[in-house]
Amino acid sequence: MKTISSRHNALYKRVRDAVRGAGEEIVIEGPKAVGDAVRAGWRAVILSVSEGSVWAGGALDELLRAAHPHRSFAPAQDDIVAFSPALFNDISDTKTSQGILALFERPRTTLDQLFARADSVVVALDGVQDPGNVGTIVRLAAAFDAAGVAILPGSADPFGPKAIRASAGAILNVPCVPSSRDELLARGWPLFAADARGEAIDPPARGAILAFGSEGAGVSEEIARVAQKIAIPMSSRVESLNVAASAAILLSRSYALR
Amino acid sequence: MKTISSRHNALYKRVRDAVRGAGEEIVIEGPKAVGDAVRAGWRAVILSVSEGSVWAGGALDELLRAAHPHRSFAPAQDDIVAFSPALFNDISDTKTSQGILALFERPRTTLDQLFARADSVVVALDGVQDPGNVGTIVRLAAAFDAAGVAILPGSADPFGPKAIRASAGAILNVPCVPSSRDELLARGWPLFAADARGEAIDPPARGAILAFGSEGAGVSEEIARVAQKIAIPMSSRVESLNVAASAAILLSRSYALR
Repeated sequence: MKTISSRHNALYKRVRDAVRGAGEEIVIEGPKAVGDAVRAGWRAVILSVSEGSVWAGGALDELLRAAHPHRSFAPAQDDIVAFSPALFNDISDTKTSQGILALFERPRTTLDQLFARADSVVVALDGVQDPGNVGTIVRLAAAFDAAGVAILPGSADPFGPKAIRASAGAILNVPCVPSSRDELLARGWPLFAADARGEAIDPPARGAILAFGSEGAGVSEEIARVAQKIAIPMSSRVESLNVAASAAILLSRSYALR
Repeated sequence: MKTISSRHNALYKRVRDAVRGAGEEIVIEGPKAVGDAVRAGWRAVILSVSEGSVWAGGALDELLRAAHPHRSFAPAQDDIVAFSPALFNDISDTKTSQGILALFERPRTTLDQLFARADSVVVALDGVQDPGNVGTIVRLAAAFDAAGVAILPGSADPFGPKAIRASAGAILNVPCVPSSRDELLARGWPLFAADARGEAIDPPARGAILAFGSEGAGVSEEIARVAQKIAIPMSSRVESLNVAASAAILLSRSYALR
């Protein structure tokens, strides 16, 4: 395992750029999340550990073997590197990473995959800007078995570091697909949107799109024009709910109605 | 209005300590939140603005007058200070504060106040460590008209800066009361706890305590021993829900059952 301690090293720069959310590669931190990703069939492009941590010793081999006995998804030996603690601390959320951080290629999924399942709903994020909320909703989509999440313009990248962390591993098994509003609407599925000005009706259980917008403004005009608006009954003691809370309530209700 | 530009100034240190969550005073940031706090009858101990911002001019007077026409809850002129931009930036979340930040005394509420309402539920947080989750649950308690929130040992302070921010103003109208587990149990109210190993039953609508624990370990043994455990039906695609998501689902359901 190479040890890298220069900030000018090309591999280091590549990992650093990915952590900052630039470029096409995505970052998974921590032994559990990295192991889960390998187990899910993701192939690490670069696997980096902190020099002096257990991962720089035999523990990494054990982790990879446990995740995938045939090692076919482990990176080539050349792509496993140790960063000096100073470098590693610079790029990682130490608490989350626990000394191990891997780069993966961005998974490629298509809208067709989302719409292949008629037994569930497709979640659409329409201007959900906060990456923590996006990751939390990805986790909810997995918890309540949504077909996947369409990411409309103005929403945070579900594969950014913060969103991945908030998804708590769910990003591995929820197809997240960037989509224009036109492409989404062209599917012709019934469209519902969470909206405080809507009616207090049950969300759809299957064969429909359920859209969530920004906390202040709600979904975009283009979506609002055609969507049936669903309100969540609540007291007048607050003005609105956090978008992830709305998603929790409507997706769990949708799942219960199946 | 005094202008302060020294880090050794006593008022500056007091505000800085409060922002860091030390001591008994709590911090509210941003014109809307400060105005809401004054409107709710909270009396600012110190009101600090960024020198050169609109609040250092006439806008502050306007804000306070709009919030409370009789000015009785506004701080004395001596307790309104301007910090130099460098100092103000050091202590504030600039995006949230928008150049205005106020210190208030910690509201004093009692368990008796929580248990005075039989038409609703009392929320108990039992080891919810993340202040963002605590604040989000305070906001949900307001949205779904819970009587208030009992803060058991091991939970984050609902009056810390991060929790207050996550509560989005709800901290102003939700009684949050630190309590021991014994004090809570001594009330003799039926006790329910969110727990994935429980039964998929409806949460109580009123006259009961609804407890949420830490994301990993759930509620404490002491609470688990006597609580009826409520599970939220979900798919096997995730191991658990975020505690704020569980609270959103159970509190909205509880409210719908009233």
